[in-house]
Amino acid sequence: MQPMTKSIPIAILCLAICGQCWAQAASDAQPAPTNILGAQYPRVLPDNRVTFELRAPNAQQVRVQIPGGPFEMAKGADGVWSVTTTPLVPGFHYYTFIVDGVAMNDYGSHAFYGTSKDSSGVEVPEKGVDYYSQKDVPHGDVRIHSYFSRITGRLRRCFVYTPPDYDTNIRARYPVLYLQHGSGEDETGWTFQGHANLILDNLIAAKKAVPMIIVMDNGYATPAGQPLPQAPPTAPPIGAAGRGAAGGRGAGGSSAFEDVVIKEIIPMVDATYRTIADREHRAIAGLSMGANQAASIGTHNLDKFAFIGGFSGTMNGLSTDPLDPATAFGGRFKDGAGFNKQVKLLWLGMGTLEPNPFPAAIGEFRKMLEEAGVKYVYFSSEGTAHEWLTWRRDLNDFAPRLFR
Amino acid sequence: MQPMTKSIPIAILCLAICGQCWAQAASDAQPAPTNILGAQYPRVLPDNRVTFELRAPNAQQVRVQIPGGPFEMAKGADGVWSVTTTPLVPGFHYYTFIVDGVAMNDYGSHAFYGTSKDSSGVEVPEKGVDYYSQKDVPHGDVRIHSYFSRITGRLRRCFVYTPPDYDTNIRARYPVLYLQHGSGEDETGWTFQGHANLILDNLIAAKKAVPMIIVMDNGYATPAGQPLPQAPPTAPPIGAAGRGAAGGRGAGGSSAFEDVVIKEIIPMVDATYRTIADREHRAIAGLSMGANQAASIGTHNLDKFAFIGGFSGTMNGLSTDPLDPATAFGGRFKDGAGFNKQVKLLWLGMGTLEPNPFPAAIGEFRKMLEEAGVKYVYFSSEGTAHEWLTWRRDLNDFAPRLFR
Repeated sequence: MQPMTKSIPIAILCLAICGQCWAQAASDAQPAPTNILGAQYPRVLPDNRVTFELRAPNAQQVRVQIPGGPFEMAKGADGVWSVTTTPLVPGFHYYTFIVDGVAMNDYGSHAFYGTSKDSSGVEVPEKGVDYYSQKDVPHGDVRIHSYFSRITGRLRRCFVYTPPDYDTNIRARYPVLYLQHGSGEDETGWTFQGHANLILDNLIAAKKAVPMIIVMDNGYATPAGQPLPQAPPTAPPIGAAGRGAAGGRGAGGSSAFEDVVIKEIIPMVDATYRTIADREHRAIAGLSMGANQAASIGTHNLDKFAFIGGFSGTMNGLSTDPLDPATAFGGRFKDGAGFNKQVKLLWLGMGTLEPNPFPAAIGEFRKMLEEAGVKYVYFSSEGTAHEWLTWRRDLNDFAPRLFR
Repeated sequence: MQPMTKSIPIAILCLAICGQCWAQAASDAQPAPTNILGAQYPRVLPDNRVTFELRAPNAQQVRVQIPGGPFEMAKGADGVWSVTTTPLVPGFHYYTFIVDGVAMNDYGSHAFYGTSKDSSGVEVPEKGVDYYSQKDVPHGDVRIHSYFSRITGRLRRCFVYTPPDYDTNIRARYPVLYLQHGSGEDETGWTFQGHANLILDNLIAAKKAVPMIIVMDNGYATPAGQPLPQAPPTAPPIGAAGRGAAGGRGAGGSSAFEDVVIKEIIPMVDATYRTIADREHRAIAGLSMGANQAASIGTHNLDKFAFIGGFSGTMNGLSTDPLDPATAFGGRFKDGAGFNKQVKLLWLGMGTLEPNPFPAAIGEFRKMLEEAGVKYVYFSSEGTAHEWLTWRRDLNDFAPRLFR
């Protein structure tokens, strides 16, 4: 009994000294919105610190790898490892437990396809911000739409957002935004991580954006008979999503993607949904690898698109070499005035904390545009890196400018 | 070089003796359809054995827990653990790697919500069977539909299958099947694990079923202000899905589910989609816990439903006590002739390999029905247990009998 009686005064002392903060931590920490039904961990504290837990009685070392970390976890007497992080950037983060060198998911969280796997993700709520929250406004559906692609010889799938009045206002036709994910992600990312549907629900309810259809397809596409891209090693480095990203159009198994968009997806969408099928009512945008694809496909097919958006990426990918408008991209931008006449919106944006080469690469692309006299909108996301909060803000600024 | 020269004759001998089977194994093993993009493992062999791999150089013991197993994995010189299982039952299986006692997902596979977590799953293709495959037939969409529930005080979500002609045949109205998942699963299960959308696409294309809407909601619902169900421990025993299942309507946090179905979901679906809103065009079915819910809600609301299906479950849950039709379930079944007049279809089914108490519990329920003279269809799935292949077969038999 000696250890027990010894420990009591220490416990009392602790309560006396830090009773208030302890009580606050215990009562104010909330299960993250990304937790599975009923899971108590991870828990988010009011100051955006997050407490993680993992039961692993036999492990020697456990840490959680997440932007802002990694954070070493400490083992409790019950074999449960835990850590409370420093305050994290709000929004969505992929994360991984590393248990004696093996990367694994947290069964307390839902899994989201990113970093080339179904990865645990945690949402850190952003105080005073609700443009991407599910509010009491009319909601559009997100449809899981399957189709066979002759170009790739494969079954493919897209997610299609139809606006709230689509099923009741059955004579109406709608403009379409084609919206692409980043490297190591897929057609599910803009809905589950990006909340594109909720952003549009809220913008449409506030009459800040016109009702539109959003088509979110899979950016990986290789010609029939060619192998699919290989999966990366089991535990890709944190931040890998989007890095291979802007790395070149052929990179990552997307060499047939432009053909698939132009010859298969657009005709299918126009035949299946009540679209307005002309360039003035069609936009293309994407993030990171998807920004590269959107800018490239959009400017190469100006008969199809009048609105183009690049979120944290442009056509020069990760290259920071200077670009001469006379020669770069086949001289596509050299006639600034002509380009401006055709393109109703060219939109670029990135986070202020994005690591190089993103700022340098996007900087060179902007210099080229300015040299050629190409008009564009530039949006800067304060205090965010190459991450989903940047891209949610991008969409929230970009969508209201479309189809006007 | 001695080891190298020694090894050559052994290699040649191996090739001479088992060259054919070795070559067959190497060339015929295919990445499972449930793998993430480009992942080479797990691989399925032609005889339904499955090879799993996991890189864990520091681990002492690794095994894969999957129905038919567990299977101990062996460590290679490169730190990669692997095993080839015995032949598995075709269809979909949840599985888990156990690494030195810690349960974890396989990053090579997609994750599916089941066993109360986003769990790795593997699909073992079934030779000569394509009723649940994605074929070159018209496909319906599966819509992710969000709504606010006043009864539970929470945001909820359902998946809604609309048949292939729903968007083109815009004057048509459709009957509705409400279809529920099992314990530890959610509204995503019938699409991603069950392939309900593909089963209906194929039945409708073959004119074996009438075009219908399927509403797949979340069976967990507690009244506003009451806590959500707790998550189970990190590593629930294999086969846990569906067990708590038939365990009672209140169990698992579904005490408000009947109210949510009757007062919120049905009115919302009838207001949102082009339904035929009468009992002759409304069915309810489910698997395991969902079978319990469907049979219970259906027979308690015969003004709403004329078709009722129980897949691997009934209203007596896991109880194997005899049931007296005069008193059981408030005497709901005692007037067999009256019940038969109202109910156009009562359908029950289960797999021949389901463990007790399922056969005994369902057996007692059937005895009661027979004693009361209640007509019902009984379907037996040969060689399958309490698993998704049973429930795919169930739906494939059940759906063609609806709305005729």
